[in-house]
Amino acid sequence: MLLFSLCLSLFVCKAYPMAASISKTTVPAAVDDPAQDGRWLSQHHRFLMEARDKEPEVVFLGDSMIQRLQDADVWKNLFQPMHCLNFGIGGDSTQHLLWRIVEGELDSVRPKVIVILIGTNNFLNSAEEVAEGIEEIVRNVREKQPQAHILVVEIFPRGEKDNIQRQKNARTNELIRNSLRGKEKVRVVNLDPGFVGEDGSISPQDMPDYLHFSNKAYTKSFTPLAHLVTSLLEEGDQEASVAKESGSGDL
Amino acid sequence: MLLFSLCLSLFVCKAYPMAASISKTTVPAAVDDPAQDGRWLSQHHRFLMEARDKEPEVVFLGDSMIQRLQDADVWKNLFQPMHCLNFGIGGDSTQHLLWRIVEGELDSVRPKVIVILIGTNNFLNSAEEVAEGIEEIVRNVREKQPQAHILVVEIFPRGEKDNIQRQKNARTNELIRNSLRGKEKVRVVNLDPGFVGEDGSISPQDMPDYLHFSNKAYTKSFTPLAHLVTSLLEEGDQEASVAKESGSGDL
Repeated sequence: MLLFSLCLSLFVCKAYPMAASISKTTVPAAVDDPAQDGRWLSQHHRFLMEARDKEPEVVFLGDSMIQRLQDADVWKNLFQPMHCLNFGIGGDSTQHLLWRIVEGELDSVRPKVIVILIGTNNFLNSAEEVAEGIEEIVRNVREKQPQAHILVVEIFPRGEKDNIQRQKNARTNELIRNSLRGKEKVRVVNLDPGFVGEDGSISPQDMPDYLHFSNKAYTKSFTPLAHLVTSLLEEGDQEASVAKESGSGDL
Repeated sequence: MLLFSLCLSLFVCKAYPMAASISKTTVPAAVDDPAQDGRWLSQHHRFLMEARDKEPEVVFLGDSMIQRLQDADVWKNLFQPMHCLNFGIGGDSTQHLLWRIVEGELDSVRPKVIVILIGTNNFLNSAEEVAEGIEEIVRNVREKQPQAHILVVEIFPRGEKDNIQRQKNARTNELIRNSLRGKEKVRVVNLDPGFVGEDGSISPQDMPDYLHFSNKAYTKSFTPLAHLVTSLLEEGDQEASVAKESGSGDL
């Protein structure tokens, strides 16, 4: 009977993975590489090299939403001139970005602003778990970069019509707005210009695959972020200038 | 003992999926939707609508390599003016594209040229299985569109350094070149301008994530395809013109 129960439990586990088997959002993890083409590690190694070679004012961390931003006009026109590095990897969840941070992607830089957008790929986790993952990333980034302004971009809605991921992303955003409120030099920013129409649907003009942005959507959504980053950089420059004039700073 | 064996086999199955559990490349299948956001079906439904509303000369079928092509300059400059429809969905394997074809994406169109690029996402299948999947797609497309030229684009290399997927993709290409050779109005085309350098690596300038193309790489790779498609369209126009002059055709 014991063996039978064991059989049954194994079978049930297989058919319906239990919550415990879902990846922890707060524990750094390298991605699985079922294709065995090493693409993910190749990207991480390139980022380490770029971090050593360049002196970015701004670093972007995240998944495909960040990665693809660098193909958009708004990147070329507004972000690139600010000396930005883009450390986005398609498919990353919170635990993967955490792994990359722990493994050194921020160890050779001293940017003034760090932008983070992550969480939509944690679709098997609860809103609470995703929020904890994002909070853990912010803690790690703060530890490595005490001088930087950290801008956490709220997760965007996804899917043509209403669905559980949209609701979960909204709940995750609410949780991080509350938990990160008042933390020094941390802001949670909402860049959604109203992607969900009155009928509850998202237009393919904005998101052709109902997840990733068109060029037009990147412009609408990320232009306000560019202005915010610019003002933070200028603020930093003013502080540095004051410090220099008063002879007090090594900024 | 029997029960114990059963337990053991279930456990082993779970840890090491057997070949039999890998998706069949030749059997139409809708994608799993673990995120439950319905994005894949939303895209399929939009394609059905576009197929009804427009009269494309050229239809592109495939995965993210086709989907992202429409964000590239070469699409805007060369393909869009030809009246092309892009039915690419990121992440699709051969069985998913097959499902979309069987479920009607080509039923309301009569294009002169159909371009197919699929297979790199079948990374758990063997080269023989991937080739069979592509051949099955070509059979289905031919059945629905006897008038069309079918251009099958060879799968591109992937991964920064040499890896088993690159080798498998090369073998798949060899298999389809042989199996599709001599079929009427079918061509297997190689669009790789030499992405693998002398040291065996692929440049991030061409493939920032070592799989998907930069804008520059799309231009290098797909410009020759645009010329080929143009010549096929002109050839069709000449045939129609001759038929019209000789009063024989309903083309």
